Amino acid sequence: MVGAERLKRVKTSEIRELLKLATQPGMVSFAGGLPASDCFDVNGLTEAAAHALADKRCRALQYSVTDGDPEFVEAVSEHLQSVGTLSKPHPMLITSGSQQAIDLTARALLNPGDVVLVESPTYLAALQTLSLAEASIQSVKAYSHGGIDLEDLESKVERLKPKMLYLVPTYSNPSGHCLSREQRLRILELAQRYRFWVLEDDPYRELYFEGAPPPPLFELSTTTGVGTNECIYMSGLSKVVAPGLRLGWVLAPASILPKLVVVKQAADLQAPSMSQRMVAEYLRRGMLASHLPSVRSTYSRRAASMDAALRSELGGELEYSTPKGGMFFWARLAKPVYGNLLEQAIARKVLYVPGESFFADSPPSGWMRLSFATSDETTIRDGVGRLAAALRDTRNLRE
Amino acid sequence: MVGAERLKRVKTSEIRELLKLATQPGMVSFAGGLPASDCFDVNGLTEAAAHALADKRCRALQYSVTDGDPEFVEAVSEHLQSVGTLSKPHPMLITSGSQQAIDLTARALLNPGDVVLVESPTYLAALQTLSLAEASIQSVKAYSHGGIDLEDLESKVERLKPKMLYLVPTYSNPSGHCLSREQRLRILELAQRYRFWVLEDDPYRELYFEGAPPPPLFELSTTTGVGTNECIYMSGLSKVVAPGLRLGWVLAPASILPKLVVVKQAADLQAPSMSQRMVAEYLRRGMLASHLPSVRSTYSRRAASMDAALRSELGGELEYSTPKGGMFFWARLAKPVYGNLLEQAIARKVLYVPGESFFADSPPSGWMRLSFATSDETTIRDGVGRLAAALRDTRNLRE
Repeated sequence: MVGAERLKRVKTSEIRELLKLATQPGMVSFAGGLPASDCFDVNGLTEAAAHALADKRCRALQYSVTDGDPEFVEAVSEHLQSVGTLSKPHPMLITSGSQQAIDLTARALLNPGDVVLVESPTYLAALQTLSLAEASIQSVKAYSHGGIDLEDLESKVERLKPKMLYLVPTYSNPSGHCLSREQRLRILELAQRYRFWVLEDDPYRELYFEGAPPPPLFELSTTTGVGTNECIYMSGLSKVVAPGLRLGWVLAPASILPKLVVVKQAADLQAPSMSQRMVAEYLRRGMLASHLPSVRSTYSRRAASMDAALRSELGGELEYSTPKGGMFFWARLAKPVYGNLLEQAIARKVLYVPGESFFADSPPSGWMRLSFATSDETTIRDGVGRLAAALRDTRNLRE
Repeated sequence: MVGAERLKRVKTSEIRELLKLATQPGMVSFAGGLPASDCFDVNGLTEAAAHALADKRCRALQYSVTDGDPEFVEAVSEHLQSVGTLSKPHPMLITSGSQQAIDLTARALLNPGDVVLVESPTYLAALQTLSLAEASIQSVKAYSHGGIDLEDLESKVERLKPKMLYLVPTYSNPSGHCLSREQRLRILELAQRYRFWVLEDDPYRELYFEGAPPPPLFELSTTTGVGTNECIYMSGLSKVVAPGLRLGWVLAPASILPKLVVVKQAADLQAPSMSQRMVAEYLRRGMLASHLPSVRSTYSRRAASMDAALRSELGGELEYSTPKGGMFFWARLAKPVYGNLLEQAIARKVLYVPGESFFADSPPSGWMRLSFATSDETTIRDGVGRLAAALRDTRNLRE
């Protein structure tokens, strides 16, 4: 396929245009995928930056190795064990944000035309990256209460012989859904039996509201021995420390990791040393561990506030499952609307992302993604009120 | 081509192994491609980092737009004009180091099998990236005094119909050579006549020892109107500010830049906000402009010191042109050596990179790349002395 045509297949979403509106004065935006700036530990990170730059060997400013700054890798590994994500250390490659982990994996493992299964709905930027790799992207159905439909998965695996399954199993973007331990084990069995890669994208794990989520599929594969050769795990610091540092990581079987390193080196040599040395220090001092509870409680309060506002303002109008972590409500209009709801919402100064963007193929109508992450509780109530008014406006226009 | 085979075509150089030796106690390394850590403006950058993190809007920590933080883009644009690299502002995309600019361009513009012409010798990591894009890489000869042979270029352009020419025209890595204005104009004429992209990689421009080099081909194309649709320009801050920040940029015709942005977004969303906000402040305060003269004078002294040591210790043994800027001497043994010179050099505790790595095809023997950037003048004299001793050892072993 010629380069120009390959690029045309990449959905350049209208979200970009939408997000420009978010900066208008008085606009309430539930549209972003940004974490809450007011949860950033600015003081802690400022201290860590000063410490990183005071290093006599100037490692924050100099080139480092492609795999990742060794002290940062160790700090990440210890962090993942201390919060219970993984039970032992694994080799990893540090990436420029976890988005890059998707890209490196796709470039190292996929050939044009390879079938990649995705959830329906799924993460938009993964669709873009998989399109760029010229994958044949096929959607697996979701259960009506959310989460990948395991019967449909098995039937598609048998029929389509996928090379890979891309999955956000924990507080997914956009659906907010979290797979149970049993569902994770079932996916591992399928992966091992039918030999396909499971690309587990796990950036929201730390943002739980009550209890911690089930272990990653990657961790379950190492403890059960099922699917150990099939699991690739990626996550990063964008949702819990700061996305502007661009730090993520990918863990993969020993047969795969060196290939990812080769692609990473050709792509951009290494992740930023400055960010790595800053956060190595931040993690080493235990600053993330002591900061995380306040991040969780902020997100949890905002989610509760959105839940309450949606029930009181749009109770009969919207259907959704209340998320147990992450950043998003994924809701559907109970009755179809014939006018342009987004247009009315913009007129009422509130933004959301229409659900169509998150489907690889023929999108169902009436879905919307609402992020509660960046708005305080008053703003959330206000914004949901505006959304309810916009829906009334839309229905009135046509009736 | 299947993924695994595609990766095999990427030369994973022995340089990586070699550079591990560079950290051994007492080793003098002329092998690295690193800039001088003692030239980093640590105080200025520490001040800039604190300022960036004090921003009430937290822009150093939050996501930014794919194109680049607008204030950083403006600061870079003003810097490029103030040092005389460009005479007017151009739209640009900020990349995660200039290495990424090569990768994004290759991904957006090349199809498997497309012919890409490179200098001989050329930058190793560009060969890796172009291989990953499955380009058919073809070398253009160099003149005996260095620099791309324009007759050979024209004949290969006619015969091979290349899609692209990749070039480091100013203080090249590894050759140190700088093309004249007339040679640059000639390449632009060929590019326009035969319609191929010129990918101009220009990271060493600011590191001149006496006078500034001729303008970039990109700038010449805008002032002469020749090749304006063919030139893509990339550079970055790795050699003059700090590589650990991972900041570069690419300027391209309006028909191409949006394609690069699509690939960048799928690849890693954006370059690090932290680095961009830091350096925006650093540039805005004029700190780079006041720091550059001392960087140039350090590099110039080190180059002179290596020149003098090579002449006195290896006068009859090595042939080379003295570079007028950059970081490298590119030298060839006047008489063949039959033993393993690198092995003897390592035994004498001095490292260099054997020239073979820098050729796309059948490499000539006896070349070496010597970097003077990271060693002070005493160490340079000492290291060249060891190299001379290692050469004697090698000759003695076989005679």
